[in-house]
Amino acid sequence: MAKNKLKVMFLGGLMEIGKNMCALEYEDDIIIIDCGLGFPDDDMLGIDLVIPDITYLEKNRDKIRGFVITHGHEDHIGALPYVLKTIKAPVYGARLTMGIIENKLLEHQLDYTPELNTVKSGDTIKLGWFKVEFIHVNHSIVDACALAITTPVGVVFHSGDFKLDLTPIEGQMMDIARIGEIGNKGVLLLLGESTNAERPGYTPSEKNVGKSLDDIFIKNADKRIVIATFSSNVHRVQQIINASADHGRKVAVTGRSMINIVSTAVKLGCMHDPEKVLIDINDIKRYPPEKLTIITTGSQGEPMSALYRMAFSDHDKVELGPSDLVVISATAIPGNEKLVGNIINELYRKGVTVLDDAVADVHVSGHACQEELKLLHALVKPKFFMPIHGECKHLLKHRELAIEMGMKPDQIFVSEIGKVLELTKNSAKWGASVPCGRVLVDGLGVGDVGNIVLRDRRHLSQDGIIVVVATVDVEMGSIISGPDIVSRGFVYVREAEELMEQLREVAKVAIDACIDEGYADWNEIKNTVRDSMSKFIFNKTKRRPMILPIIMNV
Amino acid sequence: MAKNKLKVMFLGGLMEIGKNMCALEYEDDIIIIDCGLGFPDDDMLGIDLVIPDITYLEKNRDKIRGFVITHGHEDHIGALPYVLKTIKAPVYGARLTMGIIENKLLEHQLDYTPELNTVKSGDTIKLGWFKVEFIHVNHSIVDACALAITTPVGVVFHSGDFKLDLTPIEGQMMDIARIGEIGNKGVLLLLGESTNAERPGYTPSEKNVGKSLDDIFIKNADKRIVIATFSSNVHRVQQIINASADHGRKVAVTGRSMINIVSTAVKLGCMHDPEKVLIDINDIKRYPPEKLTIITTGSQGEPMSALYRMAFSDHDKVELGPSDLVVISATAIPGNEKLVGNIINELYRKGVTVLDDAVADVHVSGHACQEELKLLHALVKPKFFMPIHGECKHLLKHRELAIEMGMKPDQIFVSEIGKVLELTKNSAKWGASVPCGRVLVDGLGVGDVGNIVLRDRRHLSQDGIIVVVATVDVEMGSIISGPDIVSRGFVYVREAEELMEQLREVAKVAIDACIDEGYADWNEIKNTVRDSMSKFIFNKTKRRPMILPIIMNV
Repeated sequence: MAKNKLKVMFLGGLMEIGKNMCALEYEDDIIIIDCGLGFPDDDMLGIDLVIPDITYLEKNRDKIRGFVITHGHEDHIGALPYVLKTIKAPVYGARLTMGIIENKLLEHQLDYTPELNTVKSGDTIKLGWFKVEFIHVNHSIVDACALAITTPVGVVFHSGDFKLDLTPIEGQMMDIARIGEIGNKGVLLLLGESTNAERPGYTPSEKNVGKSLDDIFIKNADKRIVIATFSSNVHRVQQIINASADHGRKVAVTGRSMINIVSTAVKLGCMHDPEKVLIDINDIKRYPPEKLTIITTGSQGEPMSALYRMAFSDHDKVELGPSDLVVISATAIPGNEKLVGNIINELYRKGVTVLDDAVADVHVSGHACQEELKLLHALVKPKFFMPIHGECKHLLKHRELAIEMGMKPDQIFVSEIGKVLELTKNSAKWGASVPCGRVLVDGLGVGDVGNIVLRDRRHLSQDGIIVVVATVDVEMGSIISGPDIVSRGFVYVREAEELMEQLREVAKVAIDACIDEGYADWNEIKNTVRDSMSKFIFNKTKRRPMILPIIMNV
Repeated sequence: MAKNKLKVMFLGGLMEIGKNMCALEYEDDIIIIDCGLGFPDDDMLGIDLVIPDITYLEKNRDKIRGFVITHGHEDHIGALPYVLKTIKAPVYGARLTMGIIENKLLEHQLDYTPELNTVKSGDTIKLGWFKVEFIHVNHSIVDACALAITTPVGVVFHSGDFKLDLTPIEGQMMDIARIGEIGNKGVLLLLGESTNAERPGYTPSEKNVGKSLDDIFIKNADKRIVIATFSSNVHRVQQIINASADHGRKVAVTGRSMINIVSTAVKLGCMHDPEKVLIDINDIKRYPPEKLTIITTGSQGEPMSALYRMAFSDHDKVELGPSDLVVISATAIPGNEKLVGNIINELYRKGVTVLDDAVADVHVSGHACQEELKLLHALVKPKFFMPIHGECKHLLKHRELAIEMGMKPDQIFVSEIGKVLELTKNSAKWGASVPCGRVLVDGLGVGDVGNIVLRDRRHLSQDGIIVVVATVDVEMGSIISGPDIVSRGFVYVREAEELMEQLREVAKVAIDACIDEGYADWNEIKNTVRDSMSKFIFNKTKRRPMILPIIMNV
């Protein structure tokens, strides 16, 4: 039956954080697992988000049988609105995952209605050669799944993002019984997430946060309590609702994504408010502050998030002060520490009491630590293993753990995006790579900002720009207007009038020299002007603004 | 004797990190304690460093008796080359402090030779009304001092930056006996550093790092060892030299600031190489790799630091690979986590083994934790207290600790830069504030980049710039050349020729309309062009590039 090879490739999510996307290909069938976005690096100025390069999939769009989504986090679903524009395949995922995707697609207005299919954990769907079974796992979002994918050459087990929570808030712990059963039947390839591969031990249960919240509510009975967390962490929000109900508080929600997800989760039955504590943010004035909890976005310090606006007195409903407690129920993602720190300082300045995960147990991770990863390996017992979802250091650490668990180095494939692993029933080896990379999204533009544009933005951001304009009559051999100098982002012009006058003179001398020499090539004239101005400015200021000569011929 | 009030003010180092600077004023005398720089925030694009606004001191320059420097870190000395240009007062500090300042001033070439005075801990100098005693403390640099300043109204105790190290690498532990003696005689005001006020317990001894290094050297006897740390941490470097000597390794140093400080420290006798293990980086080829230690800059992930260049294969002397161990003997300062992470990933990719403070005890802080701060309070027993050196959250936490130690809230003054505390023998209260702020240094420019320039740089960095140029003959009522469109950092032009053509047309229509309407005001024409182009671009792209119309009249 299996004459061909199974190809496994990632277009995102390896050697990087985010934009998770994997494709499995066998003969004329391709399935895509996850379709996430990434956030821009600090040097990608002006970029809103990053999506995978899907050149290979677009070339093979006829083969694509569907998108299978493990869970509803942005780094697993965020590229869907862009990718679905050209790849019109059905999408499969569990309840909340599909609820979030549906909302997202409404915002983006595709020119057709994609086929969205909601599945339950335990379900198996057939997509060409592939049979995909959804398996319940715990994670920092409801309805997260791992996938067992039966292919003609064997079973591929994709962990999704997961942790083992023995005391989950609602529903079951990760279905390790089923995973063990699948492992006992034999798994060809494990694709295992690596986010916390550097952390020893086990990730604590989400329920631990509930205990801390209860303590905090008891100790701060006289205060209004504002809690910032990830909007998608439905169980965290549920615990805040439960604690508020227990302590006789009403709960208002603020921040666009928090409002969206809470209403979606309640509608889908993933979140419950049996005691009707949820109220509209507009109604908070009707309750005494110490009988209120406010759940907000902004746990990553995002400028313009609701918490940010509260901290900087720019939120139209909530004004914070000494009778408020703010709990930051999250951990700063690397790169966001300073943003979060700025908000905390601003809150302190207002006299607000602040609790974060440095001083209270108000957050737990959603990802498996080392002992949980070992458990996964012990259950799945794969023939081959590829660590996924992580930076280089995470993937290599996960590789080490697999070796500790008894795998041989030649059974483990540490991959990069674009690399293709080709598998038969008994073998795995690297095949030819496919195109891959980062496609930058800026406003409505997808992929129209590349390296040259970014290099210019970085240049502009450092020292600004100087535009020099002149109109030249080449036949008469004279400058008939200008040169005029206009600068932006270089120096405050009123304080540098003398410098600007000198620059005009430098430009004039350079243009005159070009005319005298009889230069006919406009580029040559422009380069001469640019070089002489650049040198002059660097000597005077040790700065290198972009210089843009515009020389017009009449 | 003391009819007047003592004024205590900070021009930097309160509610912020860095640019530490304090001034004490009594009658016609002012002394300045520390003169540091700060690093730019993420939104200060193109800025190299930040120094305090010294308007008040410049106005009172005749009163200034001297600069007293607690230790040689950049955030305590880095603004000196700029401030000494206009304030020509003598500088006092201990051995290494003055050695580093001397090097720094050589680089900056002032137009006179400042008076630099080296003191020893235990020394007292007299500066007008002030008697300043230098007291030995432990810190992450050699020769750090606290200051006991006798004034006509009482003693001000300035902690500098400090920790208590019971087993220092060389020299003594912090002189708590002397501090206790001063406290017993009575201290009017304690200025106490707050960096680690949020951390419970005691900061471990520097010697702990030595033990870890010894372990690492034993376990990695077959590898070349590369250690990145702060260049100013002389005792850390000393311990690396000692461990290398013990294990038969030679030590090479790379990175400009590391080379500078090591040579200064050796010259001044703050660093010792009795077994002559230090070699020139050019000579490393003469030794087997496993007999080499390389000490490098770059522990904060700084682009273009020696470690960065090694990681990205751009260092001309050191090429790293699987037989190398890199130890990052530092903690990432908030904001630098991602930079450090990038280097670690790149090292992993090369097969290098990496140890950082997350996985090994290779770093200790140089600042006092809560128990040490309490000890300071217990010894100094001040009448009044002002927490210094920290963000808002640190200062308020230090205030809490002081209250735990028995102070009353009205004895504690949480200040901000520019605020003036006025003291008599028995009282302390706020006086009139002085000008203060951040002066931005960009290249040779000091203070010539302000909010408008930064706003323009941010604008340019996000969506680039579009310049539209036209020459108009107003009398004839026609456009005689252009409009031409030039863009940078907006979109890759070859892929957007159609958009550029449309923009030309939009600009042309706008200019023609202005001419038809008989607009005579150039600004009005420019605004009309800018607005119509801006609207058009936003509708098409959801971006807002800067639009710069240049319309010339012939």
